[in-house]
Amino acid sequence: MAAPAPVSPLAPKSYPDLPTIEGVRFATAAAGIKYKGRTDVMLALMDKGTQAAGVFTKSKCPSAPVDWCRAKIKGGKARALVVNSGNANAFTGRDGLEQVKFTATLAGKATGAPASEIFLASTGVIGEPLDARKFEGVFERLVAEARPDGMLEAARAIMTTDTYPKVVTARAMLGGVEVVINGMAKGAGMIAPDMATMLAYVFTDAPIAAPVLQAMLSKGVKTSFNAITVDSDTSTSDTLMLFATGAAARRGAPTIVTAADRRLADFRRALDTVLLDLAHQIVRDGEGCRKFVEITVEGAASAAAARKIALSIANSPLVKTAVAGEDANWGRIVAAVGKAGEKADRDKLAIWFGDIRVAHKGLRDPAYSEAATSAYMKGDKIDIAVDVGAGGKGTATVWTCDLTKEYVAINGDYRS
Amino acid sequence: MAAPAPVSPLAPKSYPDLPTIEGVRFATAAAGIKYKGRTDVMLALMDKGTQAAGVFTKSKCPSAPVDWCRAKIKGGKARALVVNSGNANAFTGRDGLEQVKFTATLAGKATGAPASEIFLASTGVIGEPLDARKFEGVFERLVAEARPDGMLEAARAIMTTDTYPKVVTARAMLGGVEVVINGMAKGAGMIAPDMATMLAYVFTDAPIAAPVLQAMLSKGVKTSFNAITVDSDTSTSDTLMLFATGAAARRGAPTIVTAADRRLADFRRALDTVLLDLAHQIVRDGEGCRKFVEITVEGAASAAAARKIALSIANSPLVKTAVAGEDANWGRIVAAVGKAGEKADRDKLAIWFGDIRVAHKGLRDPAYSEAATSAYMKGDKIDIAVDVGAGGKGTATVWTCDLTKEYVAINGDYRS
Repeated sequence: MAAPAPVSPLAPKSYPDLPTIEGVRFATAAAGIKYKGRTDVMLALMDKGTQAAGVFTKSKCPSAPVDWCRAKIKGGKARALVVNSGNANAFTGRDGLEQVKFTATLAGKATGAPASEIFLASTGVIGEPLDARKFEGVFERLVAEARPDGMLEAARAIMTTDTYPKVVTARAMLGGVEVVINGMAKGAGMIAPDMATMLAYVFTDAPIAAPVLQAMLSKGVKTSFNAITVDSDTSTSDTLMLFATGAAARRGAPTIVTAADRRLADFRRALDTVLLDLAHQIVRDGEGCRKFVEITVEGAASAAAARKIALSIANSPLVKTAVAGEDANWGRIVAAVGKAGEKADRDKLAIWFGDIRVAHKGLRDPAYSEAATSAYMKGDKIDIAVDVGAGGKGTATVWTCDLTKEYVAINGDYRS
Repeated sequence: MAAPAPVSPLAPKSYPDLPTIEGVRFATAAAGIKYKGRTDVMLALMDKGTQAAGVFTKSKCPSAPVDWCRAKIKGGKARALVVNSGNANAFTGRDGLEQVKFTATLAGKATGAPASEIFLASTGVIGEPLDARKFEGVFERLVAEARPDGMLEAARAIMTTDTYPKVVTARAMLGGVEVVINGMAKGAGMIAPDMATMLAYVFTDAPIAAPVLQAMLSKGVKTSFNAITVDSDTSTSDTLMLFATGAAARRGAPTIVTAADRRLADFRRALDTVLLDLAHQIVRDGEGCRKFVEITVEGAASAAAARKIALSIANSPLVKTAVAGEDANWGRIVAAVGKAGEKADRDKLAIWFGDIRVAHKGLRDPAYSEAATSAYMKGDKIDIAVDVGAGGKGTATVWTCDLTKEYVAINGDYRS
């Protein structure tokens, strides 16, 4: 392992004060999976009755823990979450599944929870066998040490190439009662979520039934985690879960059992804010990144077409290196629109960098100023908007970061 | 423009002796389009009766010259080819088309050929207006200077970020008579052909009718230009053309008018060799590249599925940076297979680097040797083979290069 990378220049200046969530406690440990001198396993303990929902990678080669979680989430109940960093337990065959089962058994013994209500995730190198015996004796200690205010440390324990822990908090009114939503995530590379991204966990004390959580999560992910990309590489381990302890019911919050319940409106808004914040934090920690890029596509034949074009721009190495070089090379955006395969009218295309319209009606804007555009490119937030001129109402926004030499350096030597 | 990049370490050690092709002459000039102190326009003159075929980018935002060529190729006849470097004349609106027409008019006047038999291409920056007045007086000089042995210089005049000119020659027997095929190409970045790549021109003296040329070209491109990628960015200007002067008829070669003619077998073989050689030369000059990577996928549900998986691996920044770092990080190949969306059986997957099987039946090969695999990764030709275990007979081979810091450096500052 090379020296730790410096913290991303796009990192938040400070971490929010995370209110505790009744019914959730966290603990971390250094189990020596791969890293030396840092925590690499975290346990979240949840009170009995906690409802759970999750979305997982669409990769055809999912990790063993993803297989496990996808099976167990059907029960809709969670008592514990175990996440290790340093090893993804992906592409580890039958032994990988055995290690998952063994981990769940150890955690079940230590927590007293049924294995079917224990969720697992592993993140790190793919293809290395995970030795779950390293967890022996660890969970007992974690259970003893678990604290409601341990979430920031938990977010730190699941980092791999991340340069900062990612946490967020929000409040929502539910039937006149304030509830809390806290979220954490990890991820910096292999980020092109196709259902969820690397690892993200959201906790709330709201009393909401698992099917309702699932409906909100599946919807919310579309415009948050599924709208970001660092490098177009979808992970084998993508996992996003939402846990609701229901503790706020004791303060009078109503129990919500259908997704159509109108009292959910504020919670839904707050949840979406949390998901988007975490997704943006992942992009802001994109490996080697220096710029946060927002790409909006309008005038496409459909929302799906707009999304495909937006991701074609966001994943274009030529667009991303131009942003890194602070070069307003909008011609590469034209090429990325063109290769997306969706309807676009070259001769009606318009492109903006921030407020500056650089291209209009299929050619360089008559008022184009290289100086003004170059000045804009020096900022650390770059907004690119494209009207593809297909005459439709399809729009989409996605987020990415620039592609720098540091990305290549980080990924040329990740395993060593 | 930064100092010229050093010649790719994967460049051929020498250029082939290009035999002249009866009926084709070349000339080059420095028209001052963008570059200083080098040639940037080339003219190929072809004798009357030359048959032509072409394939062009599938980009929805094609360049003005591509629009022109696509319309004119229907006639199947060619008398001249004009290519400039330094400006792509793409996304230049109606003025771009006017510049194309003006260029064709100038070339027609100088050559005496009808404008409809003059083919054009421009390569370089997208979105900059092209000032075709720079060609005034140039073509007369080029016509006067054109020589049958000018092809290598012509290949040099169309270079942009290329570090070496790309030429190839082959011979074929046609009805007992030897014919010659010469090819040239340019391209190093924005290479993810979707019908053809950047610019490639093939000349022959064989008497073959345009529809037959077209059939052979459209087929041959699939396993050559359409099977390479440098950076997944399909160009707005991709053009591949094949010109047949028919001069070999005077030496007794039969005139071929149907694609089913069996006498074409050897010509077809030689043409495919030429196309593949040029395509490989483009990859070997991939921007910043140090390694040539061949990716073969087997056991897929269909050939199309195999191709999609192979390109998913070839376009993965994480796979490409690992190759650059000489890191045998085969777990990233698993991830790239998984994200391709095609059928794959994780638990039957096998991966080879060269002759070394690194993964087998869904996990690391029991005989895996990090030392042996690392030693293999130090070579400059990396062969990756994957059996995706879907039980089908679909196979595909694609070629790419590694992703280095130099790629980022070259593309962070291309326009300046």
